[in-house]
Amino acid sequence: MSSQYTLENEVFAGLVFYGSLALIKTVMMSMLTAYFRIRNESVPTLEDAKMMAPNDPDKQKVLLQPNQDVERVRRAHLNDLENVIPFVLLGLLFVGTNPDPTTALWHFRIFLAARVLHSIAYVNALRQPLRGIGFGIGLFAFCSMAFQTVHALC
Amino acid sequence: MSSQYTLENEVFAGLVFYGSLALIKTVMMSMLTAYFRIRNESVPTLEDAKMMAPNDPDKQKVLLQPNQDVERVRRAHLNDLENVIPFVLLGLLFVGTNPDPTTALWHFRIFLAARVLHSIAYVNALRQPLRGIGFGIGLFAFCSMAFQTVHALC
Amino acid sequence: MSSQYTLENEVFAGLVFYGSLALIKTVMMSMLTAYFRIRNESVPTLEDAKMMAPNDPDKQKVLLQPNQDVERVRRAHLNDLENVIPFVLLGLLFVGTNPDPTTALWHFRIFLAARVLHSIAYVNALRQPLRGIGFGIGLFAFCSMAFQTVHALC
Repeated sequence: MSSQYTLENEVFAGLVFYGSLALIKTVMMSMLTAYFRIRNESVPTLEDAKMMAPNDPDKQKVLLQPNQDVERVRRAHLNDLENVIPFVLLGLLFVGTNPDPTTALWHFRIFLAARVLHSIAYVNALRQPLRGIGFGIGLFAFCSMAFQTVHALC
Repeated sequence: MSSQYTLENEVFAGLVFYGSLALIKTVMMSMLTAYFRIRNESVPTLEDAKMMAPNDPDKQKVLLQPNQDVERVRRAHLNDLENVIPFVLLGLLFVGTNPDPTTALWHFRIFLAARVLHSIAYVNALRQPLRGIGFGIGLFAFCSMAFQTVHALC
Repeated sequence: MSSQYTLENEVFAGLVFYGSLALIKTVMMSMLTAYFRIRNESVPTLEDAKMMAPNDPDKQKVLLQPNQDVERVRRAHLNDLENVIPFVLLGLLFVGTNPDPTTALWHFRIFLAARVLHSIAYVNALRQPLRGIGFGIGLFAFCSMAFQTVHALC
């Protein structure tokens, strides 16, 4: 059996494309957190506060207060770590089972779309169950892919 | 050298099987968190509280209180992110070094069993050092696999 | 096209080597957290406190107080999960696009060095922007690799 892990295999090419976009989306939450920290003047450590307000201990104390909007972005980020990372990693195992290309590609596309919806709904505090729908569809895509991967080995 | 990443290679087939199960176990912690949030009526955001108790600001405030049992599941989940994800990812690198199949497969099996023990002990607050044993065995399997992987390149 | 995922491909061999080291560094933060928890007598759960101070409820309450230094290591660890894991995972996708070996290897080396700087600066609370520089260079290496990976598929 030749390797599935070449760009000539459209399943692998699809994972490289959609998986990379999903990882970029996840890491962009880091940049969004940094942006919200600066805009809302809320930093995690004393050395950050000292850089932003040298010689002003009162201002430093204010800077160290947690901020609601920053914490919201951090929760959205953590949710990506909990869902996007396992999905892309499972995707690499899934490719090895030589799945049907059309099915596999739609798993990747639907997962990415669901997670983009999840992040937009979370960061902007959109009315529930919008965020829940994004989360649920992503989880469903993961479970479906997981079932197929384990099933291919049984 | 032909590719190690085919199901004909029993090390890779073992990683696909045990690695998928470990990732499923990790993502199931998300579902368990959701279940504990509903059972204990403790949600992370105002839009969740508004969905569960529309037009009842007092009830919404109660819903936004952190809950001990929910936080416990979240810590168990985070511990999986810290340990299971690096293990499966390292496993993919390890497979490329063409390790001894028996050794490799026992690393995968022992790691999975240790992490299942860890989660059961954590979520049910079993007497220590049960959780510590699960954590430690998993960490040991990771370190052993990491040493072999780096050593193969030196 | 033959598989890129063999040790004969120096890009893949480089990812196995530097990626493994980056994952080891990440998991070592777990051990550092455990060390700081014991040194500062601060544990996350009641069953830990009961093991460390059986039959002494007052001491158990003290043990359950969060500790500044422990929380600092935990934040450094979480930052690794947010950055190192996506980098190594993206690295596996990047290898499949058959990148230029010299460019790829320097991405891996610079990323690893930047993350080591980040952890040292974070754990020791070194003067900012040292930690920020480590974080920024790592993020830049990720973005550069992500751009090249997605670009190879377009």
